[in-house]
Amino acid sequence: MRNQGLGSWPARRARMTPDRVALSCRGRDLTYRDLRERTYRLARALGGLGVGRGDRVAFLGPNSPALVETFFAAGLLGAVFVPLNTRLATPELRFILEDADAAVLLLGEGRDGDGLPGRHVPAAAYEDLLASGSPEPIDEPVSQDDVCLIMYTSGTTGRPKGAMLTHANLTWNAVNLLVDVPFAHDEVTLISAPLFHIAALAQTLVPTVLKGGRAILEPSFDVDRTFDLIERERVTVMFGVPSMFGFLARSPRWAGADLSSLRHLLCGGAPVPLPLIRTYQERGLTFLQGYGMTETAPGALFLAAEHSVDKAGSAGVPCFFSDVRLVTPEGADAGPGEPGEVYVHGPNVMPGYWRRPEETAKVLSPDGWFRSGDVGVADEDGYVRISDRINDVIISGGENIYPAEVESVLYGHPAVAECAVIGVPDDRWGEVGKALVILRPGATADADELLKYLEGRVARFKIPKYLEFVPELPKNAAGKLLKSPLRKLYGS
Amino acid sequence: MRNQGLGSWPARRARMTPDRVALSCRGRDLTYRDLRERTYRLARALGGLGVGRGDRVAFLGPNSPALVETFFAAGLLGAVFVPLNTRLATPELRFILEDADAAVLLLGEGRDGDGLPGRHVPAAAYEDLLASGSPEPIDEPVSQDDVCLIMYTSGTTGRPKGAMLTHANLTWNAVNLLVDVPFAHDEVTLISAPLFHIAALAQTLVPTVLKGGRAILEPSFDVDRTFDLIERERVTVMFGVPSMFGFLARSPRWAGADLSSLRHLLCGGAPVPLPLIRTYQERGLTFLQGYGMTETAPGALFLAAEHSVDKAGSAGVPCFFSDVRLVTPEGADAGPGEPGEVYVHGPNVMPGYWRRPEETAKVLSPDGWFRSGDVGVADEDGYVRISDRINDVIISGGENIYPAEVESVLYGHPAVAECAVIGVPDDRWGEVGKALVILRPGATADADELLKYLEGRVARFKIPKYLEFVPELPKNAAGKLLKSPLRKLYGS
Repeated sequence: MRNQGLGSWPARRARMTPDRVALSCRGRDLTYRDLRERTYRLARALGGLGVGRGDRVAFLGPNSPALVETFFAAGLLGAVFVPLNTRLATPELRFILEDADAAVLLLGEGRDGDGLPGRHVPAAAYEDLLASGSPEPIDEPVSQDDVCLIMYTSGTTGRPKGAMLTHANLTWNAVNLLVDVPFAHDEVTLISAPLFHIAALAQTLVPTVLKGGRAILEPSFDVDRTFDLIERERVTVMFGVPSMFGFLARSPRWAGADLSSLRHLLCGGAPVPLPLIRTYQERGLTFLQGYGMTETAPGALFLAAEHSVDKAGSAGVPCFFSDVRLVTPEGADAGPGEPGEVYVHGPNVMPGYWRRPEETAKVLSPDGWFRSGDVGVADEDGYVRISDRINDVIISGGENIYPAEVESVLYGHPAVAECAVIGVPDDRWGEVGKALVILRPGATADADELLKYLEGRVARFKIPKYLEFVPELPKNAAGKLLKSPLRKLYGS
Repeated sequence: MRNQGLGSWPARRARMTPDRVALSCRGRDLTYRDLRERTYRLARALGGLGVGRGDRVAFLGPNSPALVETFFAAGLLGAVFVPLNTRLATPELRFILEDADAAVLLLGEGRDGDGLPGRHVPAAAYEDLLASGSPEPIDEPVSQDDVCLIMYTSGTTGRPKGAMLTHANLTWNAVNLLVDVPFAHDEVTLISAPLFHIAALAQTLVPTVLKGGRAILEPSFDVDRTFDLIERERVTVMFGVPSMFGFLARSPRWAGADLSSLRHLLCGGAPVPLPLIRTYQERGLTFLQGYGMTETAPGALFLAAEHSVDKAGSAGVPCFFSDVRLVTPEGADAGPGEPGEVYVHGPNVMPGYWRRPEETAKVLSPDGWFRSGDVGVADEDGYVRISDRINDVIISGGENIYPAEVESVLYGHPAVAECAVIGVPDDRWGEVGKALVILRPGATADADELLKYLEGRVARFKIPKYLEFVPELPKNAAGKLLKSPLRKLYGS
């Protein structure tokens, strides 16, 4: 095939295992043969709407076959898949769609496109659109180095930027995973984490399709439903953030559940707390942990199951085909025990941010090292513990919250003179946001009013759980807010 | 690391699994930490001998840690490993060493360098050489597209030519294998097929190291020793040609042997006969078969275990990241049931033959399709059966014998007017050679004399088992020998 990218994968799998089930969703099964035919049809139909090489195809909706098919169909055309976070508020979605300059937006179940720019395909029209395309094979010349995907991530700037990921980036991440995890051809992978995040897409869907396994797509995470599926479908692979695994372990069903089918529990977003590791270990289950980010597609560090206890709290060692440096403020390699900023290199590192050459230059060196903005410390064996986040990101239930983004919206309220958002520990979500606010002289506003102001302006998950009025906020000589003392003062 | 090639693999593995055993040979174990240190030392010592980027480093000897270390050490320097077939006669080895222009020749146990050109490192001097090098890490900038290996293969020309394989070629072949075979991290791989052939090197050693398994290196294949090792070392992976697996099944030890540790039996070189498949199946063992060649590093087609019976005799479907076309003499794609020449495309296809641009142009199209010279027929499901070999190659016990090479030497005998070498079926070896000779008018020579003439001039395995005097040899209008009618007349 001339198509060397992920768009060709349904066809590559179908020549090997046409009759195996590729996707299951709400009782509906699609084989690899079905997936090949449906992605050909969808690609031809999208082509009929004018989508061509390099064009952006956006998708807004929960996990579904339509999302997966759009991902592969875009790849068939050499187009770029742009999955949108369903939790974002309309102004946030509008910004991303305009920034990505999407040719078309496909809407999943339960979503409408009100207030969103460009051409829409409503969920109800999806099957008709697909049926309108011919199932004739498409074989566009797509290279591994073509961009496959743009995923938006926020940052210190307060504005989301699109991390471009190539077919090679996603492929090498999957290869790194196959080196570390003995994925079999008969995996049954439960995907209830959202596919608009890199972890679910790249650590579960992509490797499952590569091996010819079966992906069960769930629109959201639900404890009872998860137990039902594990027992009934004999799930072998799950991905989740620590809070998801915590909900399962605290459920009344935990003790009696048949978990014997589970082989690989992939966990990311934050280190799994040791008590949770032990709770699962008592059931014969170990976590595969790691560290990564959208820009590295995502795996940078990996902690093998055999070290989940003796290296608990660590994110592991570099993935096989990737490299990680810990760099001191002076630009030297940090020694064991010494903190350094985490730099990542390898075939999984993005080529840059979409139409943001300056932002790209800030994080990507000419020789391909990506600056993560996080701080890590390696032990004598090279196992890296992530100790601090330079960008102050808050990770809450697997979602990244960038304080600068929330702060910039809060500043829009007339009563706010100064504000800062920090993360505070939370038993359920790992962390939640806490806003610290100085009111303008003479202004009056209570916490509820300010939090309510954020509704509809930022995604619900970004709204701080707590808001406290404070007399002052510590700053450095240049007037820059100092988050670290703030976390010491208010972060409990 | 700046080294993106296989030279970096011992270090990449050692950061993950330093204490696992990488290589076992004659009771000696080397861990990945050892392998990393020893390859650094050897690379530095070879550098001290003047070996640098792009230089060829030859190795002549049986499977051993020294062979594997030389392979990785060459990769650390950006140099090119040239493993030599120990079965070749001195004139054949001399030709290859001169053609490769090797900077140094390392000699394995039991080999001397008499009659061979260039600088030699005798086996007895190997450990001293290695100890003379510092264990300080080396990190040369080596790209995936740099040449890693030159393996010599003969052909219709009668002269061996060096197939260049890049780090990417070997890596992607291993990735294709991981997609098809659930290699675990704890594989114990028995390597008794010679590592100077692509199959043992690329299908067993490279994937075993990639996953962090343990490779048991045997200098040769021996039935009793194989059973001993399987039982004592709990071997999980074996590669062999069908004749090796046949020897095991016919051994008196077969019935009583404990084969419970075996997981993956990789078999290449020729299709496994159905009776042998069934014999193994009775013991719960299935073969993983395929089709490939040195130039494709080697995997092109793969037959999954689940289809070893219903598709017996077939070589399978294209490997995941590779493509195969069957091309008719008119240049069209052959339909199901129609024979066509096997063309291979993918990241595993060599960039060309060493210093043979004309030979390269004959087999490699500008868009990267490699012409195998073999003929295949696909069934309705796309499973390809190799039906004929355009190049008339004889495959005997896993070694390729190119008739033109043997014929050209036979023509050197004064009594030979015309000759042809064909393959005839053989229970033990799959095929053996048979020479058909027309004597010059008035000349006298018997079969023994002519076969004896070949000794020392070609490798022993290339000497025909049979020699028959014939009155004439069928030719086409252009005077070219027609092997197909010859095989019909004499090939039993």
